[in-house]
Amino acid sequence: MSKQVWKGAALLNPAPPVLVSCGRPGDAAMRPNLITVAWCGTVCSAPPMLSVSIRPERHSYGIIKTSGVFCVNLATRALARAADWCGVKSGREVDKFAAMGLTAAPAASVDTVLLAESPVNLECRVTQVLPLGSHDLFLAEVQAVDIDESLLDAAGRLHLEKADLLAYCHGDYYTLGKRLGGFGWSVRKKPKRR
Amino acid sequence: MSKQVWKGAALLNPAPPVLVSCGRPGDAAMRPNLITVAWCGTVCSAPPMLSVSIRPERHSYGIIKTSGVFCVNLATRALARAADWCGVKSGREVDKFAAMGLTAAPAASVDTVLLAESPVNLECRVTQVLPLGSHDLFLAEVQAVDIDESLLDAAGRLHLEKADLLAYCHGDYYTLGKRLGGFGWSVRKKPKRR
Repeated sequence: MSKQVWKGAALLNPAPPVLVSCGRPGDAAMRPNLITVAWCGTVCSAPPMLSVSIRPERHSYGIIKTSGVFCVNLATRALARAADWCGVKSGREVDKFAAMGLTAAPAASVDTVLLAESPVNLECRVTQVLPLGSHDLFLAEVQAVDIDESLLDAAGRLHLEKADLLAYCHGDYYTLGKRLGGFGWSVRKKPKRR
Repeated sequence: MSKQVWKGAALLNPAPPVLVSCGRPGDAAMRPNLITVAWCGTVCSAPPMLSVSIRPERHSYGIIKTSGVFCVNLATRALARAADWCGVKSGREVDKFAAMGLTAAPAASVDTVLLAESPVNLECRVTQVLPLGSHDLFLAEVQAVDIDESLLDAAGRLHLEKADLLAYCHGDYYTLGKRLGGFGWSVRKKPKRR
């Protein structure tokens, strides 16, 4: 390989383009909103924690900073257009749930809404906010997860491969493609032939 | 949809299964190592910053904490087996570069190594370490990015879709699949027909 050295850039890819829901019904200053975030990730297994980074000028920033709660709703192929649209539009000007024909349902463990049409909702409580520059980093504990029963088998095991999740890579939305193997496949012994 | 409410879990998917390189040649306590990390993400655009979360008991943890530098090397289909293997094995027992036939090359801007066989290397300097529980969160600025010329067109524009990057989803490695659209496609006017 022959490489060029560029100045630093946000080129960690692919990322999960999740729909973050926030706000609560009946509170005029906190009307439920959706913002699409790809600057996010898991940060801890125990306790389960994730991070989302949001620009202070975004409408959802104030709602989440004030309320301290939000939901991360995984984006599927069926939600691709909504994911893109909710990342471009502002909740200051439009009710994104209504405009996209989507449903804000109450979360089970935190006082905010989740996106009913997403099959996996991570209910989060903010533990820390770190200003970094263009974005503030919200660290949050996942208090509960809502999972659509269509993703569960008879034994109650989660089959996330059925969710048809999206990946975001350098400005483009993709489906997931071919499964190459599961964690640990490189060291697993092959079954002996008879 | 009919949902079950589970207790909190690290179910933010898909994630980028990156190979993190650290250490430096000629320093016995800092022998170059690779660790695969899916608990990572972009956290800021300006300055460009990312996070990686590492368990304190991992061999790379001490190297990165002491040196304050590492590289994030994007994982491709050609690196899938190495990515899995480097996530399972420990650098205390084996030289992962040698075992996988991979090359540790000096980074341009930080005193550590990058994975030469990865077409995109993000050279990072740690700014903050936050203990969260099972994992410590390393926040880092991307100082430089090394990009293979095979991903650049004649105008010098990056075509990351040529890199055949991997996604990691709930324990499985995937290629990226069908491209559904670019950022903003949901609001772009369709060209008029003549």
